[in-house]
Amino acid sequence: MRKVGIIGASYTKFGERFDASMQELAWEAFKDAINEANIEPAQIEYSVVSNMGGWSSESLPAVIVSEALGINPRGSVRVEAACASGSSAVKLAHDVVASGQAEVVLAIGVEKMRESPSRTVVEYIGRAGNFMWEFENFGLTFPGYYALYATAYMSKFGAKEEDLCEVAVKNHYYASFNEKAQYRNKISVEKCMYSPYVAWPLKLYDCSPITDGASAVILASEDFIKSHGQEAVWISGTGYATGTANLSKRDDFTGLDAARKAAQQAYVKASIDPERPASQLDLAEVHDCFTIAEIMAYEDLGFAKKGEGIKLIKEKQTYKGGVIPVNLDGGLKAKGHPIGATGESMIAELYHQLLGKVKGERQAEIRNGKALAHNVGGTGHYAYVTILSLDKGERS
Amino acid sequence: MRKVGIIGASYTKFGERFDASMQELAWEAFKDAINEANIEPAQIEYSVVSNMGGWSSESLPAVIVSEALGINPRGSVRVEAACASGSSAVKLAHDVVASGQAEVVLAIGVEKMRESPSRTVVEYIGRAGNFMWEFENFGLTFPGYYALYATAYMSKFGAKEEDLCEVAVKNHYYASFNEKAQYRNKISVEKCMYSPYVAWPLKLYDCSPITDGASAVILASEDFIKSHGQEAVWISGTGYATGTANLSKRDDFTGLDAARKAAQQAYVKASIDPERPASQLDLAEVHDCFTIAEIMAYEDLGFAKKGEGIKLIKEKQTYKGGVIPVNLDGGLKAKGHPIGATGESMIAELYHQLLGKVKGERQAEIRNGKALAHNVGGTGHYAYVTILSLDKGERS
Repeated sequence: MRKVGIIGASYTKFGERFDASMQELAWEAFKDAINEANIEPAQIEYSVVSNMGGWSSESLPAVIVSEALGINPRGSVRVEAACASGSSAVKLAHDVVASGQAEVVLAIGVEKMRESPSRTVVEYIGRAGNFMWEFENFGLTFPGYYALYATAYMSKFGAKEEDLCEVAVKNHYYASFNEKAQYRNKISVEKCMYSPYVAWPLKLYDCSPITDGASAVILASEDFIKSHGQEAVWISGTGYATGTANLSKRDDFTGLDAARKAAQQAYVKASIDPERPASQLDLAEVHDCFTIAEIMAYEDLGFAKKGEGIKLIKEKQTYKGGVIPVNLDGGLKAKGHPIGATGESMIAELYHQLLGKVKGERQAEIRNGKALAHNVGGTGHYAYVTILSLDKGERS
Repeated sequence: MRKVGIIGASYTKFGERFDASMQELAWEAFKDAINEANIEPAQIEYSVVSNMGGWSSESLPAVIVSEALGINPRGSVRVEAACASGSSAVKLAHDVVASGQAEVVLAIGVEKMRESPSRTVVEYIGRAGNFMWEFENFGLTFPGYYALYATAYMSKFGAKEEDLCEVAVKNHYYASFNEKAQYRNKISVEKCMYSPYVAWPLKLYDCSPITDGASAVILASEDFIKSHGQEAVWISGTGYATGTANLSKRDDFTGLDAARKAAQQAYVKASIDPERPASQLDLAEVHDCFTIAEIMAYEDLGFAKKGEGIKLIKEKQTYKGGVIPVNLDGGLKAKGHPIGATGESMIAELYHQLLGKVKGERQAEIRNGKALAHNVGGTGHYAYVTILSLDKGERS
């Protein structure tokens, strides 16, 4: 298999972006990525555009984005895997290059969610569960879905609402240093605890926001990277799995089976010991759409044993200097969650972290040169895990 | 690059399918494909689900389809490239296998369009052009878009409405032998000429219908095929391109630039002489969403010189026994056009044609063992061309 590296990546300022159209948002992420890659738009041979859509008037965005970026007439496609759309785009862009069909491929995510009323957004996202059985019959929306997980976890492992709030406190803390984050205010456990309930036990500060934004990742073959003398971060393993769309069929409400399977796959491909991945990874981006999701991710990824994820956050082991720093960009919780662009933004963040290009407080210490992105769609309906490495040697 | 072959393929009865849910339609196509491939669902390592959506309540279909097919927890993604979604799924499934990331991958398209009122469908499809500039400002929907091409072609090359109707006559003729086709009635030029205008000069019988349906294509690596002793048809070349989303920026209204570019790419990869492809191909499936689209396809693919596509149909050269038989399944026009499933249905048809498995009148004479599928999204916003071959040797 041909080795594939990332040669440029970026994400826009996340938040309420009424100042930019979907195309302009895409361009904003793309121009930084392509400048970093030091290539021309015409060198991109194929683009994979991740977008959930459903709220913006441009319902078929790929060609419109391609044209705005100046990469038309190159081939393009839109991909969607609910909130894991961005990582699915990177996986497929990787495979297009690895297959030999192209030397340089763009994965770009874009989402304009804030044009729609919040009620519509919440309702539409609710369909990412199972429309017929759970959305239509029980009226479940995503805060409700994750509240089920939170109550199960709290009941089984004795976690408290305050513990979940600690995740929000960490992610707001790091977002305060990230000029592209949607929310840059530091918060306290008290502030989180006194915020209004959305779906008990989840409060406003346990939930990721509705976000506009775009993110771009440019992938290239080893041959291209060598001949152009670029700095690259290598994709050393990807894992992906699906879970049943009916929550009533799930065995367990304290973790996501798809995420565990995706992680195992990725660890095997990237030669990471699944028994102690945290010791081999310098940092991780995990899918904290709700605070409970970050706790479950610690366990699903093997950073903590079952039921001990909550200990990791209480002991600040996922801050810098801890066992494994998580979401140093502020995460979905505070950086924001523009659904189709979230996955690429995680990978863009890790690319810059591994190269030591993140300014100030947020830069992780890079020792092993490895990092992981964990991107979930639905409540584990989809999971994609991507492992990046400064070293291309250990690739399967 | 690893060689990739098709080991099973199928499509459902197309038409008004209120009898089946989206999942059930997908299963109907899948069960035949997997039986033909003689494998178990669990052997599929990844699935690419093509679906335009927007009309059915299950707006995020990939995981729901995967689960219904019993291939969960394998990874999955939805792809969309407007009406070329199906071929984009096959291209990406090919690349996942060719890259070495999987041995067996499923491309499956499904669309339930008839649940929505026709007016809604026409309006939603209209957005596949360019929402802001053409749909919203000028009210263009797809019959209108293709009518612009038809009038330009008629004006420049002296074609008549009767000539366009000849395409419908041919495609209805072959659909009459295809038990899975939406419309199995033979029609005459007169019947077409006296059908009501939809957008002058296009009449009802110049337009493809609104269709429910699903199609599945199972792709596998050469190693897998060899070790399982399967009969396979090889993917010998794929081409793909995009065109500007603004018709006002197009240079030409008598052909689709993206289709020409995609064809050239595919011919190079498949070692087909672009000067005389019809002599090397046994048959083709082309994207006849409107009759004028089939005429333009003849020219864009190099089956006829510019302005001479109309001669090809008038001389019945795209019937069996002619220069190159086209749309022996009835085409989008009469077999039907369930948007996300159309591309895979073309490829499923060619797979069976090349293996001589089509019963009766519709079976083409197979001499060269090569066939081509041409799948367009929008009015050339996307184009994907896929070349299949019985011989795996000539692959680039």
